[in-house]
Amino acid sequence: MTFTTLAEFRAILEDLPAADADARQRAEERNSQLTKPPAALGRLEDLAIWYAGWRGDAKPSLEAPQIIIFAGNHGVCVQGVSAFPPEVTEQMVLNFQHGGAAINQLAKTFGAKMDVHALSLDTPTADFTVDAAMSEDEVVAALLAGWNAVDPAADLLVTGEMGIGNTTSAAAIAAALFGGAADEWTGRGTGVDDDGLAVKTRVVAEGLARHGDVLKDPMQVLRCLGGRELAAMAGAIARAHNLRIPVILDGFICSAAAATLEMAVTGALDHCVAGHVSAEAAHGKVLKNLGKEPLLALDMRLGEGSGAVLAIGVLKGAVACHSGMSTFAEAGVSDG
Amino acid sequence: MTFTTLAEFRAILEDLPAADADARQRAEERNSQLTKPPAALGRLEDLAIWYAGWRGDAKPSLEAPQIIIFAGNHGVCVQGVSAFPPEVTEQMVLNFQHGGAAINQLAKTFGAKMDVHALSLDTPTADFTVDAAMSEDEVVAALLAGWNAVDPAADLLVTGEMGIGNTTSAAAIAAALFGGAADEWTGRGTGVDDDGLAVKTRVVAEGLARHGDVLKDPMQVLRCLGGRELAAMAGAIARAHNLRIPVILDGFICSAAAATLEMAVTGALDHCVAGHVSAEAAHGKVLKNLGKEPLLALDMRLGEGSGAVLAIGVLKGAVACHSGMSTFAEAGVSDG
Repeated sequence: MTFTTLAEFRAILEDLPAADADARQRAEERNSQLTKPPAALGRLEDLAIWYAGWRGDAKPSLEAPQIIIFAGNHGVCVQGVSAFPPEVTEQMVLNFQHGGAAINQLAKTFGAKMDVHALSLDTPTADFTVDAAMSEDEVVAALLAGWNAVDPAADLLVTGEMGIGNTTSAAAIAAALFGGAADEWTGRGTGVDDDGLAVKTRVVAEGLARHGDVLKDPMQVLRCLGGRELAAMAGAIARAHNLRIPVILDGFICSAAAATLEMAVTGALDHCVAGHVSAEAAHGKVLKNLGKEPLLALDMRLGEGSGAVLAIGVLKGAVACHSGMSTFAEAGVSDG
Repeated sequence: MTFTTLAEFRAILEDLPAADADARQRAEERNSQLTKPPAALGRLEDLAIWYAGWRGDAKPSLEAPQIIIFAGNHGVCVQGVSAFPPEVTEQMVLNFQHGGAAINQLAKTFGAKMDVHALSLDTPTADFTVDAAMSEDEVVAALLAGWNAVDPAADLLVTGEMGIGNTTSAAAIAAALFGGAADEWTGRGTGVDDDGLAVKTRVVAEGLARHGDVLKDPMQVLRCLGGRELAAMAGAIARAHNLRIPVILDGFICSAAAATLEMAVTGALDHCVAGHVSAEAAHGKVLKNLGKEPLLALDMRLGEGSGAVLAIGVLKGAVACHSGMSTFAEAGVSDG
């Protein structure tokens, strides 16, 4: 399965599979028999049942998580929206490849395979205050890069990103999807000062004004205001749904990219949980709009997939309890 | 080092070591040079620096976590305070030994060694509404069981518990230490109904009234209202401090037991972080009183050490990032 236009991609979104209701129900039955007071594992129980449904296995394992990091450069950086210069995108890609970034350590800690895709770093997207960030061909190519990057043998997906300027893109996307003024969605990103924040907010407002009614279509939001790494994350998350691979969403940028799918076709993110809520203030608002309760809240705001990969630990614990515990009958424990 | 009376145990508490200030400072310096925006790893950075200080190593590893589960039986069960019969304590000990409980799966998931100590299960503590739960000899023996259970080669400790009736004991301890009415500290534990909750609340109030001014001494609180597994957790946590082994606190019962140390000698829990806040409502209040911000909030209320062991994943991630990441200089990344 593939696509060559945004219309074809949207048609795929409209035809995504549901979770396996039978596996889910058998997982619920199993959960009620495990040696613990009812609901004593709290959200771990919901997580395990959700995971069982998407894996089509009432007693699943979680052994092959895949992290994919997409990197892209943003034309909007010419406006001075970041505390870091654009060349840091490429420098950090090298850091990922050499194993020196936070995400490398987290991938090792949680036993995840990690792939890095640098997307046309020499050709930043257009400055979205002037023009659409990407042409249709460009956004489709980025979606496809994500779509094709997913390993069908993975049993969990985390998408991460690196792209100086991309919190500006994410803020513009969130504002376009969910409404409200630019300053409600614009934050400090990697750490801009008050003047930098004012510039970012103005840039987001200009982007929204520049593209106007075109932004009523969530796929056009991704094209006009996004970046290649955001479109690739959206493509990968859609592909994971297509393959029934569960996804842990990362922070603000990942969630904004994913939100374009859900706003295009309700239910597109049913296979996703929110790994964490980041310190970037608007992230919590995006998650509320998506109806996703974050698993972690640790004031992280790094991107790279870091918060989601940390949440792999929670999901691994949930799945291990669900599939490994004895039932009351097996253990000879009185069930109260 | 050992002790034979509560007075000797308290003297040990008054002489506990501090973290290594030099290692801590060098860890802070290292943290500021790592390839990420300042503070972008949020609480992971604080955790890694805290851990470095206690390990006396600016670039520490976390490879040998120890979980110790203590089990005890409670005379107060005759009052009908639990949704489960007392024999479940021993049945669950067998479940731990056979690998079928939640904590077994979590220990495996996070690479922790797990020890189980059943403490005189055939001799429940006295019903604390009638008499002191333990004699001085009994509480000292339980403290020592905990003290001696800690592996000096461990680089992290989690203490867990199993003991039908022990949320009643923990509620009485918390009320005695922090003041307020019995109903502010009494919750549903494994799941008592409204009538059960009323019984528990009355029992806690009776325990407080029965022992009166003796409870001004936190060590007497542990003796009069505690259980063997609570005293053993307190002993183990004190021993970890003595050995500079960092501790992740678990839920309500673990935190109430630990709180007796902090209320006896301020700073006794400086080597501890709160792994999670449980669904047992009073747990959050205990943590607030201890000035500990929980790492996780997942509506868990199982005990066994389960919430704390899940938080080992967060701490492992924090330490891995801190000790494994490249600096800006090493990676050739512009630092903004």
